[in-house]
Amino acid sequence: MLVVASRPGFVEPAAMILEGLVTTIAPDGRLHVAAMGPWIADDERATGRITRLVLRPFATSQTAEHFARTGCGVFHATDDALLVAQVVTGARAAPPPSRPATAVAGRVLDDACRAWEFAVDRADRSQERHELSARVVAEHAGRPFLGFNRAAHAVVEGAILATRVHLLGDAEVGRRLEDLRVLVDKTGGPREREAFALLEAFVRGG
Amino acid sequence: MLVVASRPGFVEPAAMILEGLVTTIAPDGRLHVAAMGPWIADDERATGRITRLVLRPFATSQTAEHFARTGCGVFHATDDALLVAQVVTGARAAPPPSRPATAVAGRVLDDACRAWEFAVDRADRSQERHELSARVVAEHAGRPFLGFNRAAHAVVEGAILATRVHLLGDAEVGRRLEDLRVLVDKTGGPREREAFALLEAFVRGG
Repeated sequence: MLVVASRPGFVEPAAMILEGLVTTIAPDGRLHVAAMGPWIADDERATGRITRLVLRPFATSQTAEHFARTGCGVFHATDDALLVAQVVTGARAAPPPSRPATAVAGRVLDDACRAWEFAVDRADRSQERHELSARVVAEHAGRPFLGFNRAAHAVVEGAILATRVHLLGDAEVGRRLEDLRVLVDKTGGPREREAFALLEAFVRGG
Repeated sequence: MLVVASRPGFVEPAAMILEGLVTTIAPDGRLHVAAMGPWIADDERATGRITRLVLRPFATSQTAEHFARTGCGVFHATDDALLVAQVVTGARAAPPPSRPATAVAGRVLDDACRAWEFAVDRADRSQERHELSARVVAEHAGRPFLGFNRAAHAVVEGAILATRVHLLGDAEVGRRLEDLRVLVDKTGGPREREAFALLEAFVRGG
């Protein structure tokens, strides 16, 4: 059973989590990419105009370290389940193609549906997960996110499971992945199948 | 365990299912809305330019009847999990707001992210599920689909479960809904929570 997280203090009651990828810049200038699910206000989801993100990186993560140093980053919504799986499993030799951000010292991934550059303006770093509230300072549109695909979502769930092996155990993660695989086989395309195979190999090897 | 459907004959090997809502017109002129997951070609998904849908309505469904009579319909991608749940549970007193289609005798839902008007040009009606291949003849863009939200997807999975009670049984559907509810509580907004409550009530009452 996954632990139900309480909503962080900076989040409005009517809010939801958007899963995607965040880029930050390491001290040596390297691009760092991580999977992250910031909170967005529900009324902003409805209009599609996002002005604020609440992020909760683990205090021990590179992303949290980079935020603490730079105070900024870029969040991306993507429909590419394979890219998400590659990021989570560390399967990419190099970061995905990107270009310089326009309003913050960061980078925007080329292959994203939407990207929001943000600046952290409130932070609570007292807990195991930092709570960061960030203002969106620039937005970029890419190709449209088509919509609900059960396989792509099964990959997102599988990617989250793959990072939870130390909490849930091999057997439980394996069982849940088997359930998700049915959806991938049934409704996914080649990218979802490749992504899911990557997650399965990662869990077996981890 | 859901049965893994084999890919229908009209579908290319590299294809994926996009879940959404289809509108058809009943013999008396009423608008009919149903949840449906047509196949789209994987390369068209990548470009976002969809030219063909393969639909598989159950032979006994109103949608299949309407297709057989009119040969056309409109498929919608939506990010509105509540609308999906309302359609599946029959909770709406009236169909959602819509406008006339431009290229077929049908209607386009106002509140959709994308809509594709289509004309069926190949049909195999020999099985329990009809296999219909349809050419897209017009496209409409609405508000953007933001991206992956685990709660919205849990509602989609819950909606599919709600239509499978006769196959899976109350207990199994109830157990799976409990698992999905965790995601809705954890990552969803008010619309996902309302949608999920609707599904739970439908399953309890059905």
